[in-house]
Amino acid sequence: MGKTKPDFEAFLRRTFQAPLDAAAGFLLKLGITANFITLFGLFGNIVAAFLIASGHLLAGGLVAAFMAPLDALDGVLARKAGVVGKFGAFLDSVVDRYDEMILLAGVLYYFQIQAYTLGIMLTYAALCGSVLVSYTRARAEGLGFSGKAGIFSRIERSIVLILGLVFNQLLISVGIIAILANVTALQRIFFVWKQSKQA
Amino acid sequence: MGKTKPDFEAFLRRTFQAPLDAAAGFLLKLGITANFITLFGLFGNIVAAFLIASGHLLAGGLVAAFMAPLDALDGVLARKAGVVGKFGAFLDSVVDRYDEMILLAGVLYYFQIQAYTLGIMLTYAALCGSVLVSYTRARAEGLGFSGKAGIFSRIERSIVLILGLVFNQLLISVGIIAILANVTALQRIFFVWKQSKQA
Repeated sequence: MGKTKPDFEAFLRRTFQAPLDAAAGFLLKLGITANFITLFGLFGNIVAAFLIASGHLLAGGLVAAFMAPLDALDGVLARKAGVVGKFGAFLDSVVDRYDEMILLAGVLYYFQIQAYTLGIMLTYAALCGSVLVSYTRARAEGLGFSGKAGIFSRIERSIVLILGLVFNQLLISVGIIAILANVTALQRIFFVWKQSKQA
Repeated sequence: MGKTKPDFEAFLRRTFQAPLDAAAGFLLKLGITANFITLFGLFGNIVAAFLIASGHLLAGGLVAAFMAPLDALDGVLARKAGVVGKFGAFLDSVVDRYDEMILLAGVLYYFQIQAYTLGIMLTYAALCGSVLVSYTRARAEGLGFSGKAGIFSRIERSIVLILGLVFNQLLISVGIIAILANVTALQRIFFVWKQSKQA
């Protein structure tokens, strides 16, 4: 792990471990699988994206906020069920990308209706930065490097977008994501370069 | 490698091996490195994107067409120079993503000026599909799966986009990429799922 990464995600997981464990235990008894939770989150984000696209930012933000913890829950559930599989990890990562793409598609459509060039281009840049953060890490790990560095990973992006939706400051949120996600992608490229120099 | 992958890229590399080798030999004598070629391609694609954004589709397409072979040339040059490094492979992959994102940003801006909703949303979908194709493979390989499957990888996307620019049929090109890249991403997810069942 990179020194530059303040692990906010790990902090949240620790803080909410008890409710996450309880929820996972409950779902396990109902016979619900981790992959089902992953796909349910995808469905919820599609609903949120339609709400955002139709201008219901607060409702969209609340639905997205309800879906966000599922991203941690699926992993906890998989561990509890003792079926931590590589395909589950793969599906979880890939659906995370779909979740972001679909939410930002709703945002893009919302700005597009207003013919708001800055909003459209910033949303596009936010998507590019977001997927580059994930891509650089995945590609680094495929080559045997570590790619977990940088200031602005998935959980931070998710929180910033949800706050922008709920408080009707979408342009600011998307602008922050556009800048910080792309900075994080560059940090990861630099982090891999440093590792390659050490090797 | 997946059965579903007709390896068009390998075919092109075989067909153009002699001129690629000659060009790489020439550049090697000039002291030019593979990473320089990778970054020169990025610069060329930025120029192409500005041309596209300002409505000069033919010129943008021709510049992009001139940059496309550099994607094969950097690898050949690295091998010839005997400096095939993991960082070079990483940089090549990541810059490929930037190349696509930047070209499609030009296309997005071009459609945005015309307030062309369908063009904007298809360009966004094309970007999502394109990065998902690359992401699914990188993430699969990081987890020890093979991710090289599907009908529509980087080289095909590049050719379809360039043809659309040169022949002024950008919407059709972007629509084809939006559909086939996303289908390819789904093929790769299915391909990884099949591997996980066999393991």
